[in-house]
Amino acid sequence: MGKQDLNIIKIGGNVIDDETLLNHFLKQLSLLETPFILVHGGGKLASRMSMQMGKIPQMINGRRMTDATTLDIITMVYAGLVNKKIVAKLQANGKNALGLTGADANTIKATKRKSTPVDYGFVGNIKPETVSVQPFLTMLADGLLPVIAPVTHDGNGQLLNTNADTIASCIAIALSKQFNTHLFYCFEKNGVLADPDNDLSVIPVMAFQHYQTLKQSNHIHSGMIPKLDNAFAALDQGVHTVVIGHASQVQHFNTSQNAGTRLVK
Amino acid sequence: MGKQDLNIIKIGGNVIDDETLLNHFLKQLSLLETPFILVHGGGKLASRMSMQMGKIPQMINGRRMTDATTLDIITMVYAGLVNKKIVAKLQANGKNALGLTGADANTIKATKRKSTPVDYGFVGNIKPETVSVQPFLTMLADGLLPVIAPVTHDGNGQLLNTNADTIASCIAIALSKQFNTHLFYCFEKNGVLADPDNDLSVIPVMAFQHYQTLKQSNHIHSGMIPKLDNAFAALDQGVHTVVIGHASQVQHFNTSQNAGTRLVK
Repeated sequence: MGKQDLNIIKIGGNVIDDETLLNHFLKQLSLLETPFILVHGGGKLASRMSMQMGKIPQMINGRRMTDATTLDIITMVYAGLVNKKIVAKLQANGKNALGLTGADANTIKATKRKSTPVDYGFVGNIKPETVSVQPFLTMLADGLLPVIAPVTHDGNGQLLNTNADTIASCIAIALSKQFNTHLFYCFEKNGVLADPDNDLSVIPVMAFQHYQTLKQSNHIHSGMIPKLDNAFAALDQGVHTVVIGHASQVQHFNTSQNAGTRLVK
Repeated sequence: MGKQDLNIIKIGGNVIDDETLLNHFLKQLSLLETPFILVHGGGKLASRMSMQMGKIPQMINGRRMTDATTLDIITMVYAGLVNKKIVAKLQANGKNALGLTGADANTIKATKRKSTPVDYGFVGNIKPETVSVQPFLTMLADGLLPVIAPVTHDGNGQLLNTNADTIASCIAIALSKQFNTHLFYCFEKNGVLADPDNDLSVIPVMAFQHYQTLKQSNHIHSGMIPKLDNAFAALDQGVHTVVIGHASQVQHFNTSQNAGTRLVK
């Protein structure tokens, strides 16, 4: 009668850039029996590729300006190189992975972000309602494990660069009617740190009020704020569990070992 | 009782390089009611990208030398940029396309080609028996149309560059038990030409004996020989129809209009 568990796992760019860490993460992930949907970023590879092609990447407020050339680079690096390397490695671990963008099987539709006040170019905004639930249900029922690159489409033939954290939370929300969804943000830190300079100062459980207090007192690193806003929003919209932690500890996120930082309402 | 029809369509590099021709081809393809599996090459884009990154592409006997860097470029361009652009365009045409490499859903396994007499690097050999039939049956039953980039894997985590013509014929053979498979090689010529300098000299029907005669008298362009060898082998192994012709005529390949060159035993 109870719903099945489903892990939706976001793996960050710094892990993808570090082949040893990535391999270790994928090995640990492959030991978990719970089915998963993996969402990956692209790391610094897209910027390096851009430089190699003589194009200097432009960031505004930590977001990548995505003109047509940059979109091509992102599509090559994220949907091509990174996605297929991860899929091949998971297959080698005995996991039947299937790489996707939001265009594939029309899984995630986006609308191009408005060009005011800042024109970020070919960047897509998504919502939980723009995730197609059916293809994910079908793939999971067929034993396939989706691996998603942060590229979506508008349904009219245009690919769009889309934030991987948001893709992960939207999928976790969209599938929360059918599954107990567990959203894991995996990166190169042990969790949300009480003291950003001390890797051992992990906050094991963080309530929303606690987060508000830490944010107001500037104790939360600015890069963590959109991730945490996203994560708390997911908890409010039906996601069962949210944990933020080190990629190498992914197998302990939903056990009594309490690795990482677990968010609670 | 009769088997369903399935079109396996290879689209060549010169069509992919020409956006107008590609769009026209995808529009025509989307008008066909018969389900399809589309296999694409990468065109000159991989070589251009390689040059832009300061790496001169090396070809031996018309085949690309695939060292680790070249494999990365191919994976980016074929499995990333080209594959996702085609998928997004097909979605815009109302076709539920799903982009794949042979690693995705473990659809096509390959073995790395022996390094003697020529070491082509990370190039994969495949056979009809190394195509997994089940994932294709499942996808087609779910209304998904696979779009395949010419990259496979060895099952141990290694991606491999693989000839797109061979992928198309191996899939057509592998699925011929379940479907009436029709194999269409689409390129920028009207078919096999009796006179390579005259685009109107299309041979409408070519029997194997006729092909042998034309090959011995050097009437067949050398680049066509591996394609035709592949194509006749497919006919011998259960494929119902093989047509070679212009991409813009794909909707007429299996009708009484007899576009392109139809091969017969």
